[in-house]
Amino acid sequence: MTIQTLPFANLISIDRTSATPIFNQLANGLTKLIREGKIRAGDQLPSSRDMAFIIKLNRTTVIAAYDELKAQGWLEVIGTKGVFVSRNLPVMNPISFKSTHSLSRNAQVLPDFYHRISFDPPPYREVKPYHLMINDGQPDPRVAPIHSILNRYKALSNRTDLHRHFLTGSPAGNASLCTELASFLSKTRALNIKADQVLVTHGAQLAIYIAASMILKPGSRIIVAELNYILADKLFEQLGAKLVKVKVDRYGIDVDQIEEICKKSRPDLLYIIPHHHHPTTVTLSAERRMKLLEIIRRYQLPVIEDDYDYDFHYNNSPILPLASAEHGGYVLYVGSVSKTLSSSTRLGYLVGSIDFIQQASRFKQLVEIRGDVLFEASVAHLFSNGEMQRHLNRSVKLYRQRRDRFCQLLTASLGDLVQFSIPQGGMAVWLLFPEEYSITELSGRLYKKGIYMNDGSIYRYSETVNGIRLGFASLNDDEMDRFAAALAELK
Amino acid sequence: MTIQTLPFANLISIDRTSATPIFNQLANGLTKLIREGKIRAGDQLPSSRDMAFIIKLNRTTVIAAYDELKAQGWLEVIGTKGVFVSRNLPVMNPISFKSTHSLSRNAQVLPDFYHRISFDPPPYREVKPYHLMINDGQPDPRVAPIHSILNRYKALSNRTDLHRHFLTGSPAGNASLCTELASFLSKTRALNIKADQVLVTHGAQLAIYIAASMILKPGSRIIVAELNYILADKLFEQLGAKLVKVKVDRYGIDVDQIEEICKKSRPDLLYIIPHHHHPTTVTLSAERRMKLLEIIRRYQLPVIEDDYDYDFHYNNSPILPLASAEHGGYVLYVGSVSKTLSSSTRLGYLVGSIDFIQQASRFKQLVEIRGDVLFEASVAHLFSNGEMQRHLNRSVKLYRQRRDRFCQLLTASLGDLVQFSIPQGGMAVWLLFPEEYSITELSGRLYKKGIYMNDGSIYRYSETVNGIRLGFASLNDDEMDRFAAALAELK
Repeated sequence: MTIQTLPFANLISIDRTSATPIFNQLANGLTKLIREGKIRAGDQLPSSRDMAFIIKLNRTTVIAAYDELKAQGWLEVIGTKGVFVSRNLPVMNPISFKSTHSLSRNAQVLPDFYHRISFDPPPYREVKPYHLMINDGQPDPRVAPIHSILNRYKALSNRTDLHRHFLTGSPAGNASLCTELASFLSKTRALNIKADQVLVTHGAQLAIYIAASMILKPGSRIIVAELNYILADKLFEQLGAKLVKVKVDRYGIDVDQIEEICKKSRPDLLYIIPHHHHPTTVTLSAERRMKLLEIIRRYQLPVIEDDYDYDFHYNNSPILPLASAEHGGYVLYVGSVSKTLSSSTRLGYLVGSIDFIQQASRFKQLVEIRGDVLFEASVAHLFSNGEMQRHLNRSVKLYRQRRDRFCQLLTASLGDLVQFSIPQGGMAVWLLFPEEYSITELSGRLYKKGIYMNDGSIYRYSETVNGIRLGFASLNDDEMDRFAAALAELK
Repeated sequence: MTIQTLPFANLISIDRTSATPIFNQLANGLTKLIREGKIRAGDQLPSSRDMAFIIKLNRTTVIAAYDELKAQGWLEVIGTKGVFVSRNLPVMNPISFKSTHSLSRNAQVLPDFYHRISFDPPPYREVKPYHLMINDGQPDPRVAPIHSILNRYKALSNRTDLHRHFLTGSPAGNASLCTELASFLSKTRALNIKADQVLVTHGAQLAIYIAASMILKPGSRIIVAELNYILADKLFEQLGAKLVKVKVDRYGIDVDQIEEICKKSRPDLLYIIPHHHHPTTVTLSAERRMKLLEIIRRYQLPVIEDDYDYDFHYNNSPILPLASAEHGGYVLYVGSVSKTLSSSTRLGYLVGSIDFIQQASRFKQLVEIRGDVLFEASVAHLFSNGEMQRHLNRSVKLYRQRRDRFCQLLTASLGDLVQFSIPQGGMAVWLLFPEEYSITELSGRLYKKGIYMNDGSIYRYSETVNGIRLGFASLNDDEMDRFAAALAELK
């Protein structure tokens, strides 16, 4: 059969504004027709002259398209007979494009070859440029030395030896950054570590993910606080682990309950945020800390210590992490540089024994090969030239003032409606509303006023809790006033 | 017992050059002694005056340290008797710091609570700034518009509405970048997709990791080529999958063998690089492509199509991906922007049905929350202002010249020693040496000459193969000449 009568001009659309050359568009159109079975193996195509006439293109364009398809093996020239679709292609039945097309937007039946993810993110509402954003505890990117990082990045990318960093560096992270972090963590957290005990990650979440992936397997048991940082809970569940929940009160997680659990059967892992627990912001008391360390040693209980905002402590100096004490190598320490700079700059770290970090860096390579080494080197420079320490000093002072002002404004505008404690550190206040009060409705009313506050639904996974975390660190005085005035009016 | 006689000056080291205030150092030193059991609950401490004398510090410093420890719950004041270690701390036995300290560098017995990773990266050798790096197929960062990205990043970070991007954007990626990628992929690869079918990832490896994690579980079977991109193989094994290996010849993967496997029992996934297979650089023939699409549809076989360097094709125009054809939603498409810019800029993408991408973006949130949204927005700008297309046009032309020159030089300097085909695209040549020739020794000789080339060990996981991938795209003329001269001399 010859198919010279097919309406090619309708079947193949040519877009003269496209970046793809026209001969390519024609070639792609023809292969699509072959794939759909509209032209089959052995079919003869119109001569280039006829095709040029049919499809209203220059003949040289058609010749270029045919040559291309011959080179790719789709078409073949048979003697003097003309151009044919290669006979080695399997014969296919035409398939309607609409019914089951590849990534069709109207597919009736979705293929179900993949797992569904149990995590339901909060509903998304459009954010306008003029919206005031109330986050749940993020730094103020406006005061962070982002420009210094970018300038350094630029300088590094002009260096002729930049290739060094790319292929042969350790997957654990840029060597200068690992060294600077080891030194910073030793000075500020008494961790007593060297560079080869630090893994740099694309955000602290990835550090938790890597550590948990290396310890848990389907069916593992992990102790978590209730309430807990929801993205950690969900990631442990995603890895197939069973959550064993332990209560948190004003002194932190209930350590006696942890011991009871270990006595019966030691779980595979404990995830804990001893410093400013998420979401409630409580700090684990010294007494419980000591007891927990004893439990860790006695039961050889592996621990992920998430210390995401250690650097921001306001009342007294921060309490040293579990990882700085005697723990037999069972405590893995996770921290964040994103919390110090801006939530856009994704940088976290994982600290452990040399062997653990070596294994973890191999795992990291399988997940993302490596980070942006020039970015990491630029942040390392911030540590080595002292700018990071100055930035930290300035922001701790600023955020302390903002915390005090924010808590005063909350009391003034919400009065007895809410319960909260002034947090000793971190970037957020944990507010509890009466059971019958709808935070979702408050969030809706604020939204209409141009203020974007989450609706608390991510904390409502426990039935008894009607709370929300409100971030103060990213709000300047004017923004706080605007938020407080709206709260007072709309509550 | 009072412990006024303990040699505090020796037990607590004070570093006057440290960024940590001295009173904090003293406080940390004391809690360390309590943790180690050297001071116990109920022990009396020297008065602040005595302690100041013992440890040779100002008395106000000691008072500040004691106040700090009281606030943290470590110490308590009992009437007029003095300062004591809190009696609520559990009594502990002193533990030698050397034997089992936390992250001790000399630990005799490592805790074994974590999985070991089967992937052994190639041995590391120190790279000097003057070293000439021969990679295995990476772009030349010197010709990439890195400055444009950084300038845009700077401009964005000055905008007052930048907060919008941080908390409420989709975890799938910056909205502009998803839109730009959807449009770019539709134009260049005929993918016919919209922005909500694109997931932006921190490098293409993460896209493979996410897709594979959502499909595989321990015991799953996945078809891979032999040889195959090793970091993909290792990641599938890490997820507990069993590799089913299928031969690759000069026309690409053996599609008939895939069908045989599916006939017996359909595997859970197929991983394929149809365009420029890694490591061998062969392209899947048109005939096999058609047949493979039939198999995918007939057996409903999920596929990860890794098309990491589609944009770099030199002889004829690139062949459209499987994902552009009729595949019933079973083909997930992975690509890389890092290959277009620089291996330091980590940016990849995953394309699938709307539902798959929604689930995948939840999974991504559990792994790394989100990417650097300002960086993503800056790269989006590169697409929208046409700079990316101009950069692509320039680099394809440049890399084609480099490929031709590199292949000529290889023939001239190595002659009959090696076998290779001129690759139709990509950034590397796949060289096969005779079985008895040691690439490791060649690599060692080159290293002494200041040329860093991997030793081929990552490809030697098959016994019958003695090959290496040599990247040409990142080498300018002088660098190529230097490499070729060294090869000719040292082979």
